[in-house]
Amino acid sequence: MLLNRPNPHGGDIYKNRVKLDFSANVNPAGMPEAVRDALIRSADRASVYPDPSCSALREAVGAAEGVSPDEILCGCGAAELIYSYAYALMPERGVPALPALLVSPTFSEYRTALEAAGIGAEDFFLKESDGFRLTEEILELDFSRYSALFLCSPNNPTGLAVPPSLVRKLAEAGIRMFLDCCFLDLTDDPERYDLPALIRDFPNLTVLRAFTKSYAMAGVRLGYALSSDTAFLTAMSGKAPCWNVSTMAQEAGIAAAGCGSWLRESVKTITRERTRLYDALTGLGLFVVPGEANFLLIWAGRGIGSGRADDLPRRLLCAGILVRDCSNYVGLGPGWFRIAVRTPEENDALLTAVGEELS
Amino acid sequence: MLLNRPNPHGGDIYKNRVKLDFSANVNPAGMPEAVRDALIRSADRASVYPDPSCSALREAVGAAEGVSPDEILCGCGAAELIYSYAYALMPERGVPALPALLVSPTFSEYRTALEAAGIGAEDFFLKESDGFRLTEEILELDFSRYSALFLCSPNNPTGLAVPPSLVRKLAEAGIRMFLDCCFLDLTDDPERYDLPALIRDFPNLTVLRAFTKSYAMAGVRLGYALSSDTAFLTAMSGKAPCWNVSTMAQEAGIAAAGCGSWLRESVKTITRERTRLYDALTGLGLFVVPGEANFLLIWAGRGIGSGRADDLPRRLLCAGILVRDCSNYVGLGPGWFRIAVRTPEENDALLTAVGEELS
Repeated sequence: MLLNRPNPHGGDIYKNRVKLDFSANVNPAGMPEAVRDALIRSADRASVYPDPSCSALREAVGAAEGVSPDEILCGCGAAELIYSYAYALMPERGVPALPALLVSPTFSEYRTALEAAGIGAEDFFLKESDGFRLTEEILELDFSRYSALFLCSPNNPTGLAVPPSLVRKLAEAGIRMFLDCCFLDLTDDPERYDLPALIRDFPNLTVLRAFTKSYAMAGVRLGYALSSDTAFLTAMSGKAPCWNVSTMAQEAGIAAAGCGSWLRESVKTITRERTRLYDALTGLGLFVVPGEANFLLIWAGRGIGSGRADDLPRRLLCAGILVRDCSNYVGLGPGWFRIAVRTPEENDALLTAVGEELS
Repeated sequence: MLLNRPNPHGGDIYKNRVKLDFSANVNPAGMPEAVRDALIRSADRASVYPDPSCSALREAVGAAEGVSPDEILCGCGAAELIYSYAYALMPERGVPALPALLVSPTFSEYRTALEAAGIGAEDFFLKESDGFRLTEEILELDFSRYSALFLCSPNNPTGLAVPPSLVRKLAEAGIRMFLDCCFLDLTDDPERYDLPALIRDFPNLTVLRAFTKSYAMAGVRLGYALSSDTAFLTAMSGKAPCWNVSTMAQEAGIAAAGCGSWLRESVKTITRERTRLYDALTGLGLFVVPGEANFLLIWAGRGIGSGRADDLPRRLLCAGILVRDCSNYVGLGPGWFRIAVRTPEENDALLTAVGEELS
């Protein structure tokens, strides 16, 4: 938990008066009924310790992902697996730690986890002139200088995915690579990487996946990592405590693993609504990055008739709408914010409020 | 989670065919109805991210413990807080890490967490000739050689508590001290340390507490640490991910914080049954450590008519009764095992089975 530290993320509906939360990127369809039922049923099995090996959950996830249960490590949310990965990068005492490479702006927990592990982080900055797309220019780096490369695809906060060919070229460079695919299932093309083939071809690759966003179970805390380097997964597992995945999370996860067609159906609505939000916000004079997932990155710093609107997040909060102010992302600054794609009615309300603020 | 590693703990009912589980030390009264209701209600709030600051939970725990919410750090089970503590002991890169001191035999997660953090562990062995009681002999050690002292009271697996005067003398020695009180509420005298006064007098002290055992919610994963050194608690919080305490755990914990009188009532039964088990097992010729909590440590290596009974745990498992084989505890060996104090009926079944095996 965060003690005496500000929450750097979205979704903090506890410290704000919020009518509509556009700051957290969970599936607007809400939690599938089967997951909710599993959660409720699990209360009767929560007296005893959870299975520390998550055996049944890994069987279910393995079947859904098309990988072996031995290639899966479950954690208390994707966030915990980021920490376990960072701690697993720590060299023996006395050996200097190489810094890790981040492709920024990106999810801030990578840096926070690396700091916890005493490992430095260096930034390779995405360029606004490239539309924040990662290009093959990154291949010119000397990867031997880094302990690992963190790649988020689709990237938080841009929503842009790294082309599969570039992911393969980076993996071929031999650097230890962390590929965060937590939002991949919320795009139109969740199969683009062929993850089972990718992890088998590249043991240096660890893929991060989460149930949190796709099945709107952010409060349950469940994520998992995929890798064909089972020795490295075992090392990661040693960095987190026993029983870190609760009985609720294990049972809800097994239920969610069976909700694939529900998810694909819900993504159709997300895609339709994302396109509508993109068009409407662009029409209001805002610069919107054409993200592929269930959120959009927006700059309120230009193109507005009455001048800049850097304080749009604050003004929307006065109207009870929480968006994700992105000014604290390394590589962004004032004026940037992120919105989740919500239900048609909620999106209407957002568009109305933004229109009023900008008029 | 444990991947490709054997489970070193009790409570693994997932890999064994178990009719009666005496291996895990949870309150035999089961989960209070109020906690179960809170868990079920929380399912409807589990779509969104949990409060990363656990504000309402810390208010409730602070009121129950008589400490300020700022002196509380919550975690995904007590086990996670052991890891956060160990990671917080890591010195800056380049600075050698002093080993930590364990009072053995004791809970194995301290050593596992220290290993994860790259910190060595040295053992101060409790002596069977002292009845496994910690004596003032420990005060003769040069504590400046250690980064921290881990003390478990009542100790797992012996069930014996450290005298309050000795805890104060150790804290006065100035060493950074981790006092694991996870089983304290399951003894007759849960107030013996006056924890609010103790942590205020000694900022070098961190006290570990858990809901897991007292309220039979081991599957939920919730523990907390108390310290008046809020800067150290903040450092610990930086070693664990954001959102590590689930919505379910926060709501169940708030409910459990209001179940103090339920707990005290349930401890009366535990005390009565523990005494009965102690007398009966001793009567069967087994050596039983006179533990004060909801479990008993037993040696099956002597005093049995037909010879040693080192394999009693294995033989009981054939009868569907899982006990905690303690032969893998550092400082114990073959023949030692631990049983939980369960309900009168379950305890009867255990005594019958042990009697049959030994006859």
